[in-house]
Amino acid sequence: MFADNLIQKIRETSPICLGLDPNLEMIPECIKRDYSLGNSILKFNEEIIDAISDLVPILKPQAAYYEQYGLEGIEALKITIETARSKGLLVLLDAKRNDIGSTAEAYANAYLKEGADFESDALTVNGYLGSDGILPFTDLCKKNGKGLFILVKTSNPSSGELQDLELKDSDLVYSRMAEWVKFWGQDIIGESGFSSIGCVVGATFPEQAAYLRELLPNQIFLVPGYGAQGATASDILPCFNEYKEGAIINSSRAINYAYKNRPDLKEKQFAEAARDAVIAMKEDIDKALLP
Amino acid sequence: MFADNLIQKIRETSPICLGLDPNLEMIPECIKRDYSLGNSILKFNEEIIDAISDLVPILKPQAAYYEQYGLEGIEALKITIETARSKGLLVLLDAKRNDIGSTAEAYANAYLKEGADFESDALTVNGYLGSDGILPFTDLCKKNGKGLFILVKTSNPSSGELQDLELKDSDLVYSRMAEWVKFWGQDIIGESGFSSIGCVVGATFPEQAAYLRELLPNQIFLVPGYGAQGATASDILPCFNEYKEGAIINSSRAINYAYKNRPDLKEKQFAEAARDAVIAMKEDIDKALLP
Repeated sequence: MFADNLIQKIRETSPICLGLDPNLEMIPECIKRDYSLGNSILKFNEEIIDAISDLVPILKPQAAYYEQYGLEGIEALKITIETARSKGLLVLLDAKRNDIGSTAEAYANAYLKEGADFESDALTVNGYLGSDGILPFTDLCKKNGKGLFILVKTSNPSSGELQDLELKDSDLVYSRMAEWVKFWGQDIIGESGFSSIGCVVGATFPEQAAYLRELLPNQIFLVPGYGAQGATASDILPCFNEYKEGAIINSSRAINYAYKNRPDLKEKQFAEAARDAVIAMKEDIDKALLP
Repeated sequence: MFADNLIQKIRETSPICLGLDPNLEMIPECIKRDYSLGNSILKFNEEIIDAISDLVPILKPQAAYYEQYGLEGIEALKITIETARSKGLLVLLDAKRNDIGSTAEAYANAYLKEGADFESDALTVNGYLGSDGILPFTDLCKKNGKGLFILVKTSNPSSGELQDLELKDSDLVYSRMAEWVKFWGQDIIGESGFSSIGCVVGATFPEQAAYLRELLPNQIFLVPGYGAQGATASDILPCFNEYKEGAIINSSRAINYAYKNRPDLKEKQFAEAARDAVIAMKEDIDKALLP
């Protein structure tokens, strides 16, 4: 099942989730010169995957960055997912899908069903519609050993506009969402002690993360916001439990396009730069996690 | 701009939004016999579009129902959008996208940018992430004359789990979301008096709709829940303003697959059955709207 697989892979590698978000402007000229749009994305992604597959447990393509390039981009997403999984990486598709029950079932079939074109190991979803928009996803997670990460407290500056509203009983909206996540995930807990139904908790809000870590001992946190969004290694500490487990820290741009800050390397060595950036990030996290 | 175009088209035709959600099991055998998966969807959609394009202002393909069929389904979505727009229909892509600012911009470019593979006239989005997840969409709406429908109070049975939570000041979560929608849409109001930034309000909650209609006089309501989800014509009345304007009532399955309840027609006459169902729905709404 997803949670146990992920925890096992984290132990073998690192708690890093590598975001893989194509931005044509940032892809090296030496690739774009020789390939079409879709194949430029693929060539770039394949080299990155080869360079980091022994260092990270899970890859997170962000659907928007593929969808923005139309059909060609979406075809590149399909092949990227297949490539990453064939190299032994878990794939978390960051698509934040959400809808009423019958439609949520169609989304679940698109991304969590065996043999689907975009079959991934886990998916991000948005729980604003409540249980009947989430249960079709958790059903497939149970059946197919898949995982979910449900938005709880997001990393962006204005996440508090809705998520931090105070309720009558002095709870907050995001903490109520957290309680629902706990409920939705309570019967998919693996031998690792973690549920395959995790949540998204921004590294940019360490106090809220500490509160959520206590509330949700069985949830794996997907933690965006480290690096490009400004959170540091000490900010992510509260996302881990007392055994320094239970969180995957995402970084995308800072790793994918690390070659831009490496005057010592040639442009075509972008994958080497990405590998170095992953190693540096792992060291940064390891140091922060030291007792 | 989107709001004025939509209101004008509603006046010329009806306040019906036709959901076009492919379900291979429900597509007539006489089509599936002769066509591949993707082309079966397309052939079905094209016949439906031809049969109803003079009766409805706007078509709403639901992304999930195309994504579930993988690349072939997504290619059919692209051509369906192009076909509908070429016949003069507005297209609202129901994809409920949401993310942090930079990623929301990529989604906006995917669906609201001129020349994009999936260029639509409007998009549904989820505002759980707050302003910086919404403004990249509203920016493109202003620039390109596009529209948004933001989830406020959804039609599904469990929508209240999050959306109906009572806040400290005795407001509810969905009414606070409604106030944000008002704010996000306040500077994109057309000559019709309506904003291009509308909202989703389920027909299944008529009391909440009446409250929201009063709170949001300038918003167009996209109203799901009529027909298959159980709401009747009298339930949708509160979504309209005093001039019987400002709402589009969605129906999908009950129209697309109306031929299943027409023993008097041959299977291949499915588009005729859909046309008849639209006419009956319009009569049902017109009767309810009579003073």
